[in-house]
Amino acid sequence: MSSEGSNVHNCLGWAARDASGTLSPYQFSRRAVGCDDISIKITHCGVCYADFVWTRNHLGDSKYPVVPGHEIAGIVQEVGQNVQGFKVGDHIGVGTIVNSCRSCDYCNDDLESYCAKGSVFTFNGIDVDGTVTKGGYSSFIVVHQRYCIKIPVNYPLTSAAPLLCAGITVYSPMMRHKMNQSGKSLGVIGLGGLGHMAVKFGKAFGLKVTVFSTSISKKEQALKLLGADKFVVSSDQEQMKGLAKSYDFIIDTASGDHPFDPYMALLKTGGVLALVGFPSEVKFSPASLNIDMRTISGSVTGGMKQLQEMIDFCAAHEVHPTIDIIPIQYVNEALERLAKRDVKYRFVIDIENSLK
Amino acid sequence: MSSEGSNVHNCLGWAARDASGTLSPYQFSRRAVGCDDISIKITHCGVCYADFVWTRNHLGDSKYPVVPGHEIAGIVQEVGQNVQGFKVGDHIGVGTIVNSCRSCDYCNDDLESYCAKGSVFTFNGIDVDGTVTKGGYSSFIVVHQRYCIKIPVNYPLTSAAPLLCAGITVYSPMMRHKMNQSGKSLGVIGLGGLGHMAVKFGKAFGLKVTVFSTSISKKEQALKLLGADKFVVSSDQEQMKGLAKSYDFIIDTASGDHPFDPYMALLKTGGVLALVGFPSEVKFSPASLNIDMRTISGSVTGGMKQLQEMIDFCAAHEVHPTIDIIPIQYVNEALERLAKRDVKYRFVIDIENSLK
Repeated sequence: MSSEGSNVHNCLGWAARDASGTLSPYQFSRRAVGCDDISIKITHCGVCYADFVWTRNHLGDSKYPVVPGHEIAGIVQEVGQNVQGFKVGDHIGVGTIVNSCRSCDYCNDDLESYCAKGSVFTFNGIDVDGTVTKGGYSSFIVVHQRYCIKIPVNYPLTSAAPLLCAGITVYSPMMRHKMNQSGKSLGVIGLGGLGHMAVKFGKAFGLKVTVFSTSISKKEQALKLLGADKFVVSSDQEQMKGLAKSYDFIIDTASGDHPFDPYMALLKTGGVLALVGFPSEVKFSPASLNIDMRTISGSVTGGMKQLQEMIDFCAAHEVHPTIDIIPIQYVNEALERLAKRDVKYRFVIDIENSLK
Repeated sequence: MSSEGSNVHNCLGWAARDASGTLSPYQFSRRAVGCDDISIKITHCGVCYADFVWTRNHLGDSKYPVVPGHEIAGIVQEVGQNVQGFKVGDHIGVGTIVNSCRSCDYCNDDLESYCAKGSVFTFNGIDVDGTVTKGGYSSFIVVHQRYCIKIPVNYPLTSAAPLLCAGITVYSPMMRHKMNQSGKSLGVIGLGGLGHMAVKFGKAFGLKVTVFSTSISKKEQALKLLGADKFVVSSDQEQMKGLAKSYDFIIDTASGDHPFDPYMALLKTGGVLALVGFPSEVKFSPASLNIDMRTISGSVTGGMKQLQEMIDFCAAHEVHPTIDIIPIQYVNEALERLAKRDVKYRFVIDIENSLK
């Protein structure tokens, strides 16, 4: 990586200073653009649950000040001399990681986020130069070209932002488990930032999509706004039993605690439940897995190649997250609402027009 | 299926009459050989944990008298007029099922044991004619040709018997999850009838095999007798931690309760744990699954085509279960010992020479 930039505090961001998590303006310095770096003027940044977790030090490893944000969309403003495929003015995206070893089996296999030496998270990570990474709640960012993707010109930057974590987190297991087979059936558990993207990808893949939710209040939105084919309140045991062994796939995006056996029972023989949520534990009867040859498989985000593939797919098939655009000044309230699941379905900060 | 045979009690078996599970001689009738049926003179039958479960009514659905046994090897003594590929004198095997609908997607996909209408278990099942099936602790059996496999002449019938349940139960997930890639690493949890076959298949596939056991007493046998490359006592936390992220695959054959997180942690990124045991529950942290894109997948036995493939593989590669041949008169003690895991590694009843 390049050497540190000047000591000038060249970047304006919003940071949390302590575990209260309250964000406020914060000046800091970004490194100078190295040979392989791209400097990106940030126009939009999605608000992810990870932002809530690390601004509040929920995992005990927050390195304050924390500038969150890892769903970054923007415009190239400068490129290093070795940069290929990007030029000033290009639309560009940065997701959950900004560095990795680039030489291990996983990096070589386009699975940079699973780098054997540990990938560097876009914020609150420790980069190879020892600095703590600072995320997308800021005016610009400098990133090695390997961790940047091209956003097609016909695809809105506002839409692109949430794809860079929420989108890829569901797209990646959907592709890995071959959920893009038109006509097959998909159940989606949970209807937040991840779940609503699973519905949209499911429909774009030609799947029959059912949303499972604890609350009937989400029915109309699931069916009308997101285009799901069916809506089931998961506490309706009779309806759940009637759907036994009828789904090829389930994507479980719920991070609240919930039983697994009733959902496993919905899967056909050989069916797959892809877990992307983080409840406090996963618990089920081995019979739920063994008797019908079922699989439960987990993952987090996806590699850079797949990220590019997903964005290109979304542009080609007009898949757009459903978003609520907010100014940076609203971000503290937005994070509180996100924690209460009071968002349809992703806040996106209009950095370009509000961060000054 | 064909009509009932004569009322003559033409078959001698050993049956449990009640939940005490005690087996003793029992005369009953087998149906006459129908057009698609094969009558098999049973020479050997493996003793499976399922025999213990149903003779003692552990699941509450035992239909006494229960004649157990679903690892059946023998010799063709009569064939129906439509039977193809089998002739009198052929060596033949019957596993855990003797019927299925033969028309559903699963049957058509060579997954008869997952038949949508329910496959018929070899014993304690209800056949399409309403009769309760009776298993291999008996002098002969009449089975539709679809549920019979050919045992190569150079492969001992004694060795074939345990493959028909224990063998296929581990072979099937090993093939499904591509565990037959030479040079990859396999962990085997539990060293009973299933686990010892997983070790043998692993070595035959060219894998580096580690046995994980709660007891150091199994070390020498695992390494010397079964040919495992490494033996780890699972309570040795230091050794377990040193092996973190180093296995491509794990086969978990343990039906005693055990934690899953320490074993999941052994898997590399993208690793697969195949569960074939039945502990009382499966419980782990979602981080154990998600962070390293791991998978846990269950199954029971395998289809007829795969059963044939496995037997042919075993004959070609000289894979033989390690067995303890017993007379039928010893079977009550054998079942008690099996329940206490006091067997190396499969009892096989010498039906031919002891059941008279």
